[in-house]
Amino acid sequence: MTISATFSSHGKILMSPLRKSEWANQPVLCKSVELFKNGRNQYRMSTNSNKFQCRALEIENKSSTKFHLDDVIESQQFDRETLSAIFEVAREMEKIEKNSIGGRSEILKGYLMATLFYEPSTRTRLSFESAMKRLGGEVLTTENAREFSSAAKGETLEDTIRTVEGYSDIIVMRHFESGAARRAASTASIPIINAGDGPGQHPTQALLDVYTIEREIGKLDGINVALVGDLAYGRTVRSLAHLLAMYEDVKIYFVSPDVVKMKDDIKDYLTSMGVQWEENADLIEVASKCDVVYQTRIQRERFGERVDLYEEARGKYIVDMSVVNAMQKHAVVMHPLPRLDEITVDVDGDSRAAYFRQAKNGLYIRMALLKLLLLGW
Amino acid sequence: MTISATFSSHGKILMSPLRKSEWANQPVLCKSVELFKNGRNQYRMSTNSNKFQCRALEIENKSSTKFHLDDVIESQQFDRETLSAIFEVAREMEKIEKNSIGGRSEILKGYLMATLFYEPSTRTRLSFESAMKRLGGEVLTTENAREFSSAAKGETLEDTIRTVEGYSDIIVMRHFESGAARRAASTASIPIINAGDGPGQHPTQALLDVYTIEREIGKLDGINVALVGDLAYGRTVRSLAHLLAMYEDVKIYFVSPDVVKMKDDIKDYLTSMGVQWEENADLIEVASKCDVVYQTRIQRERFGERVDLYEEARGKYIVDMSVVNAMQKHAVVMHPLPRLDEITVDVDGDSRAAYFRQAKNGLYIRMALLKLLLLGW
Amino acid sequence: MTISATFSSHGKILMSPLRKSEWANQPVLCKSVELFKNGRNQYRMSTNSNKFQCRALEIENKSSTKFHLDDVIESQQFDRETLSAIFEVAREMEKIEKNSIGGRSEILKGYLMATLFYEPSTRTRLSFESAMKRLGGEVLTTENAREFSSAAKGETLEDTIRTVEGYSDIIVMRHFESGAARRAASTASIPIINAGDGPGQHPTQALLDVYTIEREIGKLDGINVALVGDLAYGRTVRSLAHLLAMYEDVKIYFVSPDVVKMKDDIKDYLTSMGVQWEENADLIEVASKCDVVYQTRIQRERFGERVDLYEEARGKYIVDMSVVNAMQKHAVVMHPLPRLDEITVDVDGDSRAAYFRQAKNGLYIRMALLKLLLLGW
Repeated sequence: MTISATFSSHGKILMSPLRKSEWANQPVLCKSVELFKNGRNQYRMSTNSNKFQCRALEIENKSSTKFHLDDVIESQQFDRETLSAIFEVAREMEKIEKNSIGGRSEILKGYLMATLFYEPSTRTRLSFESAMKRLGGEVLTTENAREFSSAAKGETLEDTIRTVEGYSDIIVMRHFESGAARRAASTASIPIINAGDGPGQHPTQALLDVYTIEREIGKLDGINVALVGDLAYGRTVRSLAHLLAMYEDVKIYFVSPDVVKMKDDIKDYLTSMGVQWEENADLIEVASKCDVVYQTRIQRERFGERVDLYEEARGKYIVDMSVVNAMQKHAVVMHPLPRLDEITVDVDGDSRAAYFRQAKNGLYIRMALLKLLLLGW
Repeated sequence: MTISATFSSHGKILMSPLRKSEWANQPVLCKSVELFKNGRNQYRMSTNSNKFQCRALEIENKSSTKFHLDDVIESQQFDRETLSAIFEVAREMEKIEKNSIGGRSEILKGYLMATLFYEPSTRTRLSFESAMKRLGGEVLTTENAREFSSAAKGETLEDTIRTVEGYSDIIVMRHFESGAARRAASTASIPIINAGDGPGQHPTQALLDVYTIEREIGKLDGINVALVGDLAYGRTVRSLAHLLAMYEDVKIYFVSPDVVKMKDDIKDYLTSMGVQWEENADLIEVASKCDVVYQTRIQRERFGERVDLYEEARGKYIVDMSVVNAMQKHAVVMHPLPRLDEITVDVDGDSRAAYFRQAKNGLYIRMALLKLLLLGW
Repeated sequence: MTISATFSSHGKILMSPLRKSEWANQPVLCKSVELFKNGRNQYRMSTNSNKFQCRALEIENKSSTKFHLDDVIESQQFDRETLSAIFEVAREMEKIEKNSIGGRSEILKGYLMATLFYEPSTRTRLSFESAMKRLGGEVLTTENAREFSSAAKGETLEDTIRTVEGYSDIIVMRHFESGAARRAASTASIPIINAGDGPGQHPTQALLDVYTIEREIGKLDGINVALVGDLAYGRTVRSLAHLLAMYEDVKIYFVSPDVVKMKDDIKDYLTSMGVQWEENADLIEVASKCDVVYQTRIQRERFGERVDLYEEARGKYIVDMSVVNAMQKHAVVMHPLPRLDEITVDVDGDSRAAYFRQAKNGLYIRMALLKLLLLGW
């Protein structure tokens, strides 16, 4: 279906509850037609009846888009160029946040974001909600969205999405099931951002990690990165390794207790991409060679009954001042937070402690993504 | 008490925490008086002291009001003319939502809505909060308001309302007890909207149902409506039957398992109002005759231990494509959502599936009610 | 460290995540420097790198500040002059709330308040959020912030604060541990307001109590105040007694069941400050002498298994119409709310019942504090 229409890219914008699947399957005859652009560089027609609606993907004078960004579902969806373009926007966002009164712009005024959290994650939720509000947008919050789909009521995720998309312009979703964000995105006609789906993906965390490295070190090619701690279950370090493989001359050191070693799939992937990696048990030696020491929390819940194994693992690699003192002046310590004692508190005072700046960068990355998904490049 | 005052209906608007009961009972002498109009077409005087305050119901140059709308408590409070007027406003709201950037107006800028939910209902809460924000208003959210009145603390609903009305301009309330909304309204000096009080009323759902029928079918007189599923306990279908009785030449078909048949009070009411109704076990036959097939979920919790009865009841009347194919081209399937499997997923693709449009209409109805209660007609 | 800079007090304002402790400890050399004023009359420098940041306490053309107000942590931090100045601002806030459309100003437009509640307190949270929104500001809500610091995850309060201060301009915090607010304030670079920390402090309640007395009685010197009910555990009456000791010729009557008598520390403090006090078992006699009868709820949870003692205590001193009739015409009954039956409902109709006005005054006090902490005097 190709539709020709004269269209101003600054015309009226409409977020419709129309399902993606519909427009392709049904030919529609419309007499009185209005044409709207939605926030994803797609278009939508509306007739006077609210029964017949359709969307058009191809419009004659489409606004120029550098990159295609409909949803944010997984870190693998981004290539080097897209990341670089997103980071440029994030840096603009940083300027807005630092230079405006109350750190606020009005570019998303009138837009409504729904945070649909099937499991609570206050930290991530606040970061997204702050990002939306710093850009002048509004927020609908659900921190216990499980009731929507509870066994008792039994509503499908798809039905929930179709309802919530009628109330908002973009959905930020956290779910306990891997793949849930992808299912939501294939149902929704508005943009979906995955704020973590179970053991699966947490792409905005991965993006803010890479952004932080670029901000702190000044480059992404030719860097040495130590991934420390829980490498087996930590979704963060797995995603980071994946993304770093896109850059040139990267070397990755894995430093972890035996019970939570990096799995073979990532090692094989890195090898296939020509990324050098090694496992190394000497944190101090590794720290002295690296631009980034990325520490992670050993997650107790992974060990079940084996408290002894947990206690042994968590105490093994602590980033304290002896590690930091071994690091180069320009190098940084990162951590996805929250931390327990895997980084000692005295490290906080050292300028190489980048983890709170890293958390703040999450705000800029999320501001950038909200801007890009709702307004385009 | 009659007060004369020159007054501009576009003057300053004040939502006061003053109790309705007070102004009538106490004669008040005020030296320095300011006069304000509140959002309910009533007026309020304030002296310099904050101890003596009163409200006046009669003011000389009262603004013209077509209909009296102080609170939204139960579906029976609406007559045909008021419904029609509300629907007209809802259609304006639909235009605002579809045509503005981010679907937003600013007519309620500066107004504050409190959602006081004594039991969680994310779907209803989001719909109201979206409605308020689409009109430029702000929201205070309480999804676990039970703590306000918990047995431990023992505060009365009346005291809670007197406190919350000091923080907001309108209260949207959901409660577990039938009649709670009426009690709140008789205490509050600001408008109350009932978002469901236990087995009692859920008037905004009833309004959006009737609005959807008018939008989809084009009329309310002379229609045939099938009410399907749980007719015994479903508050939705009971309210809908009530409202449909106001229209001419309506015929209602009840299609339900024996254990959840429509109760006699509604049948008697329909008969007394001259509405034709019949019970019919053949869903396909009924569907072929009706303009609207209103399906509902069989609620497991009504069956207690009798899982066998529940399983028998829920599987009996499923709306699938065989039912839809029997329907006329202009007819529609409605459902208050959430659904389980009482409508099969393949029906979603048919243009007669109106239930997601129905959910969206809830937004327009709530926008209209918020506008009317806060700004008047 | 003294920094000279030309600086406009109406220049750009920045709330930085920088820790208070850092700027003092590390000398910093900055080449390219931007200078910002934050909301606490302190200043902050930023270089192009986001690694080196510092704050300056002394700037040449500092804007004039009448009083020093960085955080609101405990009632003892306020002297008579500061209270008086805050009350003046609160009265301005009252005018804004009563006279604007929807009771709203825009002076805090662009500012973001985070409500970080480690235990739920809907009443207090709503009051703060309403205050922020009435001034045009925005809110990030967390009502179950315990997850931030749960035993399972084990994050420290300090780390949480460092993260949340990156997302907001001011933090309103409620915590279950005495002293938590002070710890937060010593970590944060943005203002902290204590909304109650366990058995410790609840300073905004204390301020609104004193403000209410001044508004209702017209003065604070020379007044007689009865503190009634749970004087042993009630944090409210203890703070109030503390603050009243700053005024001249105040006399305090303690009226309470024996099991919850006022403790010696407060009695000794009052004596040391030259405040007259007496214990008196005759509520009617006391009521006839006092300007303020401050009733409190006997808290069941303080009595553990001893339900008999609780029942005896709670029934002992009830404020009913016989008490109110004994009071002078200008006197008032106050209560921090929620109430059970320690004030009978018929008292509500008497103009001397000031407790709902008192709750409303909480809004004005919180508006004033938000304004002062974010914009200065």
